[in-house]
Amino acid sequence: MKIDLAFTPFELDKKDLQEKTVVVIDTLRATSTMIVAFENGCSAFIPVSTIEEARRLAEEKKRPDLLLGGERGAMPVEGFHLGNSPRNYLPQKVRGKTVVMTTTNGTRALVSARRAAEVFIGAFLNLSALGQRLKETKRDILIACSGEKGLFCLEDTVCGGAIVDYLEKSGLPLLRSDSAMSAKILYEYFEGDIYGMLVASEWGQYLESIGLGKDVRICAQIDSSRLVPVYREGKIFLDR
Amino acid sequence: MKIDLAFTPFELDKKDLQEKTVVVIDTLRATSTMIVAFENGCSAFIPVSTIEEARRLAEEKKRPDLLLGGERGAMPVEGFHLGNSPRNYLPQKVRGKTVVMTTTNGTRALVSARRAAEVFIGAFLNLSALGQRLKETKRDILIACSGEKGLFCLEDTVCGGAIVDYLEKSGLPLLRSDSAMSAKILYEYFEGDIYGMLVASEWGQYLESIGLGKDVRICAQIDSSRLVPVYREGKIFLDR
Repeated sequence: MKIDLAFTPFELDKKDLQEKTVVVIDTLRATSTMIVAFENGCSAFIPVSTIEEARRLAEEKKRPDLLLGGERGAMPVEGFHLGNSPRNYLPQKVRGKTVVMTTTNGTRALVSARRAAEVFIGAFLNLSALGQRLKETKRDILIACSGEKGLFCLEDTVCGGAIVDYLEKSGLPLLRSDSAMSAKILYEYFEGDIYGMLVASEWGQYLESIGLGKDVRICAQIDSSRLVPVYREGKIFLDR
Repeated sequence: MKIDLAFTPFELDKKDLQEKTVVVIDTLRATSTMIVAFENGCSAFIPVSTIEEARRLAEEKKRPDLLLGGERGAMPVEGFHLGNSPRNYLPQKVRGKTVVMTTTNGTRALVSARRAAEVFIGAFLNLSALGQRLKETKRDILIACSGEKGLFCLEDTVCGGAIVDYLEKSGLPLLRSDSAMSAKILYEYFEGDIYGMLVASEWGQYLESIGLGKDVRICAQIDSSRLVPVYREGKIFLDR
């Protein structure tokens, strides 16, 4: 089985996804936030690329169970019900709700990943559960990092490396690409202090600087969830 | 001083280069081949994007000192005087000559790097000389990896990490981006066996498989040259 990793959505676009299982990662914060939301009873996410698209969709559907969520430059969007902080997605707010979500980086990778046979949502929060689910797949695996404004970011890569590491340790015979091997090496380097890595990363530093350090701590909680959301037919939800 | 690294020409295009010193790396093989050619008395390279452009330029100039060099998919181009193997660029062939050069990956990064204040050519072959030259610059540094067909490749990243390592060890106070830090970590991992890393890389394996393993060995000769070619006004040459 082959395992590959795309550092950015641009690289993802250049790869053949049709027969692949793709894992989309946006550790700080979109995919971590989604996992927290599902833990709190959220029904689904509908990822869209733009703020306008999110507003239009909510307007069209006029469903009382529909909420608008997301960010631009880590800041909440005017008129949206929810930002992109895991601390926003409390049970009383999201239970039974569907969130139309738009974020700077995570959404872009998700939209690109739609071409794949199967798409999972990954973060440090659901690492082992995700690894177990991936062990069931018979397809080649591609880890899709969201990156930061289309460029490499450390935290998604290290999280991707953690997935490679999990699968290798579980005895799965893997043929690693240069990028998957590199991510694994970076994971091994930071393995002992994932929170420290997140804080030291460029985006982690930015989040700290605008007072969102608590979110970084939440995103570092390895294996706090057993949930593995899937992205299918335009929706992110739990299929088990 | 800031130090940043672009894994691919696409990432390079998204970065502000105007006030920066850029190092272009295409370890396997374009920048290594250039350094060998300069050691053998070559006068200059003129990098161009396409085979047609190379032919047209040679036709226009009709200079007897002009040679055509390069590759597509690691194979020589029909009618060209030289391929992209360092073993092609022998003194009797290249002394006093200017080579119009087009390669799949290296040329693309060079063309993108033109916007920078200053551009150097780097490889394992001139690592220390390059590091010394970079210590003189007062500008922020950006290492531009050529990658492989627009995607990440291990060997350029590890070579970039070696440059970061050299500059840090020389005591230069550096502010590293996520990518520069990651490249340094990857370099530290492979430091003891650069040749082994080149052979294990995807592109290195491909070169081996088509009988070009000898080239890989040449490209692993760390510090075999003291030359640091510059890329200025469309030409690569030695300014010292």
